[in-house]
Amino acid sequence: MLVTVRRLLTALLQARKQPFQPSRDMRLVQFQAPHLEGPHLGLEAGNDGGVIDLNAFDPTLPKTMLQFLEQGEATLSVARRALTAPLPVLPRSEVTFLAPVTRPDKVVCVGMNYVDHCKEQNVPVPKEPIIFSKFASSIVGPYDAVVLPPESQEVDWEVELAVVIGKKGKHIKATDAMAHVAGFTVAHDVSARDWQMRRNGKQWLLGKTFDTFCPLGPALVTKDSIADPHNLKICCRVNGEVVQSSNTSQMVFKTEELIAWVSQFVTLYPGDVILTGTPPGVGVFRKPPVFLKVS
Amino acid sequence: MLVTVRRLLTALLQARKQPFQPSRDMRLVQFQAPHLEGPHLGLEAGNDGGVIDLNAFDPTLPKTMLQFLEQGEATLSVARRALTAPLPVLPRSEVTFLAPVTRPDKVVCVGMNYVDHCKEQNVPVPKEPIIFSKFASSIVGPYDAVVLPPESQEVDWEVELAVVIGKKGKHIKATDAMAHVAGFTVAHDVSARDWQMRRNGKQWLLGKTFDTFCPLGPALVTKDSIADPHNLKICCRVNGEVVQSSNTSQMVFKTEELIAWVSQFVTLYPGDVILTGTPPGVGVFRKPPVFLKVS
Repeated sequence: MLVTVRRLLTALLQARKQPFQPSRDMRLVQFQAPHLEGPHLGLEAGNDGGVIDLNAFDPTLPKTMLQFLEQGEATLSVARRALTAPLPVLPRSEVTFLAPVTRPDKVVCVGMNYVDHCKEQNVPVPKEPIIFSKFASSIVGPYDAVVLPPESQEVDWEVELAVVIGKKGKHIKATDAMAHVAGFTVAHDVSARDWQMRRNGKQWLLGKTFDTFCPLGPALVTKDSIADPHNLKICCRVNGEVVQSSNTSQMVFKTEELIAWVSQFVTLYPGDVILTGTPPGVGVFRKPPVFLKVS
Repeated sequence: MLVTVRRLLTALLQARKQPFQPSRDMRLVQFQAPHLEGPHLGLEAGNDGGVIDLNAFDPTLPKTMLQFLEQGEATLSVARRALTAPLPVLPRSEVTFLAPVTRPDKVVCVGMNYVDHCKEQNVPVPKEPIIFSKFASSIVGPYDAVVLPPESQEVDWEVELAVVIGKKGKHIKATDAMAHVAGFTVAHDVSARDWQMRRNGKQWLLGKTFDTFCPLGPALVTKDSIADPHNLKICCRVNGEVVQSSNTSQMVFKTEELIAWVSQFVTLYPGDVILTGTPPGVGVFRKPPVFLKVS
């Protein structure tokens, strides 16, 4: 039996007051609407705003974020023009937001990467990043249901800042890393603790990669719209109650170091997503532990 | 400094005598040739034979294996017609073989899945499959160089039978599993033992997923060309010397059980690759241990 957890998870990632006009922030989305055939690329008109259809603005633009990012500055400059043009805005109620990136080559995850999350577990702060992964098939849209699998009794939340790669690279230096970043989005590293911690030879993969265990989005906020990605409020609500609340300043290894670390091992491609770790407040370390259930 | 190990690894996976004409075996490949623009799909004319250009035979066929598999019976039937038609064969010396599948959604790997490999490690045979993964970015062609990363001093070989998924599915029953298989190929689960066993919080991913650590191919042999995938000789040679030699009959969890197991967690898609574990003879368990080096 499959049961779904609708609206159980809500995530919020807010920039502190930025020196940008809200209308100038580039919030790229993938969306669907009843009058459109298949997914389109769009611009979210501000946090919680409606959507500008980028494919209507320029029909030569690709319709997937992966292809959009692969074309680099050529497509980004079109989106930048759309930001300042007087364009029709689809009301938010008429669109369905997909994950801002689908079918990336990689979903890279980082374990124990918040100082305050390490304290809550009573473990030392890692000396090197701990890297694991999810399959891309676990990605769902930001408002999609997280399906509670009957195979797990311990499904937990983990809000995270996610980095989206914009430019291919290997052995990227930390000082060059931001040139490889397209932008940032919100992720949930939904985790089946029983499978992560006690089964599968203690390899975390299965507990992390059930279908629907990687909600992303709604928006890929481009890096130039964020003054400091390591000074963002990060917060997770379950049924309206705040369960995680921290700041990305607590990250042990920052975006630049993570990109340098991971790209020692693998070539990073446009669209690759790096989930940068979760702050404290997850269910498994509460006393007694709390897990997601059908509401 | 990056150094390459050329022709260090060769793999052989041979069916025992089958009740099929060799010319009827369907050996699908992705290849390049000097006179062609970009990769093409082809048929390897027997083990070590030349290549029939499927895209020349039918220009409406897709040029990637992923798209070919996604179209299912429609494209397979075209390839079947090509098998029996009198077509020109490109000499093997004129083609470059790519991996038979590139950019799959998933590369699923199975640990400790040969009875004789468990014995060599002195560990009990697992009661459940142990699942880990590589990123698709680690895939290279069957004759490409394996790049020895300066970050590891303990790079080891692991020849494996790989299953390629042909049909999407979730919660697939073992009895239905073969209907979801397109065919089989040879894989190397190249492994940096230092990173797999002692670093990265003992999560195996990084040690398994360096670029070039997943040679595949040359051919995706369709399932109807193999009488019994669990009675195949499997062998690995390093510089001509046989270092692994076993039979897929030694697999603890067979193809059907692995598909049933993995599809509890994730939806399997056409093109997904499952590396089914390695037989004994790897370098790390030798006394003293032996690792790959530049020849």
